[in-house]
Amino acid sequence: MGASSRVELITIGDELLLGFTIDTNAAFLARELASIGAEIVRRATVGDTTAAIVDAVREALDRTGAVVTTGGLGPTSDDLTKQAIAELFGRTLHLDDETYARLAARWRSRGLPEPIPSPNRQQAMVPEGARLLPNNQGSAPGVWLEDARGRWVAMLPGVPREMRAMTTDALVPMLRERWTSAGAGDSLPVVRSRTLRTTGIAEATLAELLGDLAAGVDGMPLAYLPNQDGTDLRLTVRGVSAAEADRRLQAGIARLRFVAAKWAYGEDAADLAAVVIDRCRERGLHIAVGESCTGGMLGSRLTAIPGSSAVFLGGVIAYDDAVKTSELDVPVADITEFGAVSETVALQMADGARGCTGAEIGVGITGIAGPGGGTPEKPVGTVWIAVTGVGDPIAYRTVFLGDRAEIRYRATQSALDMVRRRV
Amino acid sequence: MGASSRVELITIGDELLLGFTIDTNAAFLARELASIGAEIVRRATVGDTTAAIVDAVREALDRTGAVVTTGGLGPTSDDLTKQAIAELFGRTLHLDDETYARLAARWRSRGLPEPIPSPNRQQAMVPEGARLLPNNQGSAPGVWLEDARGRWVAMLPGVPREMRAMTTDALVPMLRERWTSAGAGDSLPVVRSRTLRTTGIAEATLAELLGDLAAGVDGMPLAYLPNQDGTDLRLTVRGVSAAEADRRLQAGIARLRFVAAKWAYGEDAADLAAVVIDRCRERGLHIAVGESCTGGMLGSRLTAIPGSSAVFLGGVIAYDDAVKTSELDVPVADITEFGAVSETVALQMADGARGCTGAEIGVGITGIAGPGGGTPEKPVGTVWIAVTGVGDPIAYRTVFLGDRAEIRYRATQSALDMVRRRV
Repeated sequence: MGASSRVELITIGDELLLGFTIDTNAAFLARELASIGAEIVRRATVGDTTAAIVDAVREALDRTGAVVTTGGLGPTSDDLTKQAIAELFGRTLHLDDETYARLAARWRSRGLPEPIPSPNRQQAMVPEGARLLPNNQGSAPGVWLEDARGRWVAMLPGVPREMRAMTTDALVPMLRERWTSAGAGDSLPVVRSRTLRTTGIAEATLAELLGDLAAGVDGMPLAYLPNQDGTDLRLTVRGVSAAEADRRLQAGIARLRFVAAKWAYGEDAADLAAVVIDRCRERGLHIAVGESCTGGMLGSRLTAIPGSSAVFLGGVIAYDDAVKTSELDVPVADITEFGAVSETVALQMADGARGCTGAEIGVGITGIAGPGGGTPEKPVGTVWIAVTGVGDPIAYRTVFLGDRAEIRYRATQSALDMVRRRV
Repeated sequence: MGASSRVELITIGDELLLGFTIDTNAAFLARELASIGAEIVRRATVGDTTAAIVDAVREALDRTGAVVTTGGLGPTSDDLTKQAIAELFGRTLHLDDETYARLAARWRSRGLPEPIPSPNRQQAMVPEGARLLPNNQGSAPGVWLEDARGRWVAMLPGVPREMRAMTTDALVPMLRERWTSAGAGDSLPVVRSRTLRTTGIAEATLAELLGDLAAGVDGMPLAYLPNQDGTDLRLTVRGVSAAEADRRLQAGIARLRFVAAKWAYGEDAADLAAVVIDRCRERGLHIAVGESCTGGMLGSRLTAIPGSSAVFLGGVIAYDDAVKTSELDVPVADITEFGAVSETVALQMADGARGCTGAEIGVGITGIAGPGGGTPEKPVGTVWIAVTGVGDPIAYRTVFLGDRAEIRYRATQSALDMVRRRV
């Protein structure tokens, strides 16, 4: 059973079970383990009771012999994971000197009064025969317990930051080695995926454009993931070695990128604002904004990127029409004639932003985010976006779908993409 | 077994199992069901295979006799929930005329070519003896199956919007009636909670301030939930009737609010920006911003609130120091003498924002969001926030903890709270 890569995940905690906390740990673990060849068979969540933990872990061990748990390693009375699983394995707990010394050092460094109270000392109690997984982000180490038949449980903390670091630094290398030495090795079939991010093109149009590749590339299925940034294209490969998976994914993404070049701005977790900042920095260009319906969101997205000060100078939030005039030099007559949501005003706002900052590139956004304010000619969602100062001035009108938050965000995404295409 | 309120939840789908999608459905269902008296015993996630679905549902039925599933009701070949569970109950599927008629109407209204393809027609296939739960947000109805012993499975769609509406509109009323007619009635013990939102006070200080109430109120445990908005205080009551739970929660929250009045800005999902907009609207006051390190985020948060145009006029994103001078009239000499991150400059930015918009209230924010740019005197996280025009001008310096995103967000939250306390 030692060589099996079938794994079950059990997340432990009343907060999770009652829905007060969304379980993000299970998804992270599933992705990480699948990427090194684990087959995730089932996930479960149980509350903070010994019986529930023991039952769930026993059943999972019977099915797969391999279980990862999160939660229940802390110092409070409802942290029962170690005791419950030690009991299931017929092990007793003892104080681990090294863990205790580390706990004491942490305790002192935080200036807390000694001796360490008994509940906290609990974190240094370890089942006999356990292997410990170091916790670089907190005080409770992870615990690996294995029986004579090679059935194992890895217990990780529930705090996401601690759990993630421990998974990456300790659990994944351990499992990789275990599966390698069990003969499965680097040929262990994995599940991996890569994502190409596109924006400014509808899902159906994208599928049409992709033609032969619309359903998949080279045997790898293609998933369309529409979201507020655009439509992500996710290729997934399963059942081949890690090296082969990476090779196929790279080739597959390259083919998608070739066809969708105009709309593709990055891969995986790429952020369009970061892409724009990078390109402008390379070209020595600066950006300024004049924002109405987005109210500062475009500036906020650009300045979310570390180092954006080399590119982004600032701008004006011209929510009130009088501010459009006083700060961005939009003539009152034009607002009266064309309306605040118009091509003319968007272009003037972009130029006004350049004027008051000295930036080469100006972006103007003016629209109707709703829920009120729409008219038959300019329904809610109507947004004019202008980019000036790099190439010919351009302005596009879009009617974005969605609620107020979606319309505003999509307007910033569209503005960023207009800049991206021109730099 | 019919009167039991012990329930298990099973979410179905490879996307969930592999961690490509975070499971938010289970948390929503758990909260909704607990609030009408369900005891959530366990949650599980399985992939899109008949065997996995059948096994998980059978085991859950053996434990509790009551199961809610989400997912697997769609038109594609990996949507297997209905077939799998019908099989488990020994039922066959037949075409439901009413569901088919509704499907056909939807199909026509979207202008799609008829006849409806067989995979989509699949959504109108229903197990014999099933009760249907209407889907007001999509095409697949929910399915309720019950056996002769009163053991039941409620199958809901996986699309969160559809699942939520169906839970609220159909499942919750059904279960409430079921448990009532089974004799448990309105006295069925529920789990409910309410949250008081505070900001600007550390968790430990808040606990000290609460004194006798620090651990709980009137037998209801108190949870401290620190987050980027501040610290939320959640009271939970369990084991009493719904009416009694609501009465106790209301009294408990009132007591907490009395003690923490200075820091409490709302309940449950309250948004501080909305609170500020409401108060200013009532008093006929207007707001303008001068933002440096937050780059427009404060304006973005204020304009996220529908109707904010009655209060928020706009302002200047003065990321570059030259913009602070040209647009907000901050003297170069002051930037040189005190630095851009200083009390003087923050106050001038607030006044500058008022000056260029005519707003009564000006907010200035200038700080070091990191990761670079910190010095021993002004480490990363140092932010000066000023509010002028309402009472005496004030400016506070805070060193916010966290990464760039957290520092920026916390600065906006702090600025909003400074305004809240003065209007």
